[in-house]
Amino acid sequence: SSKRKITVAYGDGIGPEIMKATLNILEAAGAQIETDVIEIGEQVYLKGISSGMEPSAFESLKETKIFLKAPITTPQGGGFKSLNVTTRTSFGLFANVRPCKAYSPYIKTHYPKTDLVIIRENEEDLYSGIEHRQTQEVVQSLKLISRPGSEKIIRYAFEYAKKYGRKKVTCMTKDNIMKLADGLFHKTFNEVAKEYPDIETDHKIIDIGSALIAERPEMFDVIVTLNLYGDIISDIAAQVTGSVGLGGSANVGEEVAMFEAIHGSAPDIAGKDMANPSGLLNGAIMMLVHIGQPDVAEKIANAWMRTLEDGIHTGDIYQEGLSSKKAGTQEFAQA
Amino acid sequence: SSKRKITVAYGDGIGPEIMKATLNILEAAGAQIETDVIEIGEQVYLKGISSGMEPSAFESLKETKIFLKAPITTPQGGGFKSLNVTTRTSFGLFANVRPCKAYSPYIKTHYPKTDLVIIRENEEDLYSGIEHRQTQEVVQSLKLISRPGSEKIIRYAFEYAKKYGRKKVTCMTKDNIMKLADGLFHKTFNEVAKEYPDIETDHKIIDIGSALIAERPEMFDVIVTLNLYGDIISDIAAQVTGSVGLGGSANVGEEVAMFEAIHGSAPDIAGKDMANPSGLLNGAIMMLVHIGQPDVAEKIANAWMRTLEDGIHTGDIYQEGLSSKKAGTQEFAQA
Ligand SMILES: CC(C)[C@H](C(=O)O)[C@@H](O)C(=O)O
Ligand SMILES: CC(C)[C@H](C(=O)O)[C@@H](O)C(=O)O
Repeated sequence: SSKRKITVAYGDGIGPEIMKATLNILEAAGAQIETDVIEIGEQVYLKGISSGMEPSAFESLKETKIFLKAPITTPQGGGFKSLNVTTRTSFGLFANVRPCKAYSPYIKTHYPKTDLVIIRENEEDLYSGIEHRQTQEVVQSLKLISRPGSEKIIRYAFEYAKKYGRKKVTCMTKDNIMKLADGLFHKTFNEVAKEYPDIETDHKIIDIGSALIAERPEMFDVIVTLNLYGDIISDIAAQVTGSVGLGGSANVGEEVAMFEAIHGSAPDIAGKDMANPSGLLNGAIMMLVHIGQPDVAEKIANAWMRTLEDGIHTGDIYQEGLSSKKAGTQEFAQA
Repeated sequence: SSKRKITVAYGDGIGPEIMKATLNILEAAGAQIETDVIEIGEQVYLKGISSGMEPSAFESLKETKIFLKAPITTPQGGGFKSLNVTTRTSFGLFANVRPCKAYSPYIKTHYPKTDLVIIRENEEDLYSGIEHRQTQEVVQSLKLISRPGSEKIIRYAFEYAKKYGRKKVTCMTKDNIMKLADGLFHKTFNEVAKEYPDIETDHKIIDIGSALIAERPEMFDVIVTLNLYGDIISDIAAQVTGSVGLGGSANVGEEVAMFEAIHGSAPDIAGKDMANPSGLLNGAIMMLVHIGQPDVAEKIANAWMRTLEDGIHTGDIYQEGLSSKKAGTQEFAQA
């Protein structure tokens, strides 16, 4: 068939509801996809599989190379590895792409002109998980930064800016303290930047950079940064534009790519048809562009915007006066 | 004499102006202090002293144990060690105390009820500066967390809360990734918390914690966290409450303590009598409490609030309608 096969996981908590809503929308819009459903998350962890993913799930991903993933719940207690981190490192998903846009007035924000993309290095840094307890009293963790890793993500950021007509790339590091590690990233940034003379560049120390994202997010365009800083600033950017429940994210490697919502599995509202499917939907839109179905992606993005404009809002973004209707998950998807 | 001897450094950029203003205010309010002036910063670095501080400066500090420090400029180029970090580690200044309060309407903010204190571990973490380039292409930095170091800062935070009648202490870590290092800090927090049953406790993962400081700072009271996270969140908190130009900070050890403004040396406006002396003044107020002159501290704090209320504002916080007068540095200090 001409349909693109993708791996799909319904996840935990609100995962199943928002995945169902998302897949319904994709089908209605004419996306040419065929799904291979795998089980991941809580149930798999509790079977004693520390990665939260069975071998068959890895097989599916190796075949389809595309993963649409709903949020999962990691059980309490030790011994469970982060499924996100496992997927990122097992498949070399080196780039975490997190667009963050304000949708004022439908989503309340003090910063209505925000339209930035955080491109976060996704494999190195303190996420290597190399730690040891040298004595009962002293623990050491290793932060690893390599030139190839830095170069790859920085080049990805500049190529992204070029492809999507963005004007500026800002690098954030703490190289006044980590002169070697963060210094290597910053230096590599300066070198790669020379190959893109049409794109403006900037650098901010991560402390003041984070503060500016919190209070002047409109000044940023594309941001490229290390893994841990990227983790922090993407949550800040989503929070101040009100898009924590709306943001999608792509984890991209040379071969495999994973698409998801930036929010978690929200077990407290699971099964109540209350969840907003927009985050996963926006992840799916990025996926459609990635697999060469940009027309379908655009159609869905327009329909989504139109639904917001029509005032059909899930409870999390409902605003007296601006919303015409408080809709459930499936009803919002229908609209 | 009954005067307390303190070490004072005028620093670089706007440093000399705001130090002069601050010392004038302290004198006028009847602070019982005597100053021992040392030279630090740019000129000292350029003499080839990589710490930015001459041996005589260390001697002065060893004697007085109290350091009131204006911002400095670190020259461009390599080989210069951070003077802040040197002072912190040389004198064991393990606690960095950064109050952050909104002064609405005089200082514009979306979060007028913010009144939090960040207590940042000040010696360990990636600030140890242990880094090596293993190959041309790979760099490693060491993050060091110890139980005694964690316990000391966490206990300091709870004692601080108790002393100043604060109700809640929130711990922030990334222990879903750094299970050993950040896990040790979090575990120590839970243990120490048991000794303070009257104080409410909470924990946030640093990504969402930073996002909440950016967008809901009013929910926090005392926050205790690792060095690098504390660096980031204190800039965010200051930025969103508009207090980057106003915040003072204390670096406290068993014997020595250093007091400063949280902002930098702003060379662009140096020597123009434009700078706002409030940050250093607020640092000096913390110093007066520390050396047992709380009455003088309160007198100055009240006078400062009154000056803001009277609409006498430096250019950085001037607001048409709310301000009666745009004042220079010395004129503001006079008021
Ligand atoms: C769940 C956690 C491991 C993950 C991360 O830190 O990368 C999450 O915070 C994210 O941002 O995707
Ligand atoms: C100047 C720098 C070394 C310092 C730090 O990172 O601690 C500064 O950002 C601060 O917060 O005091």
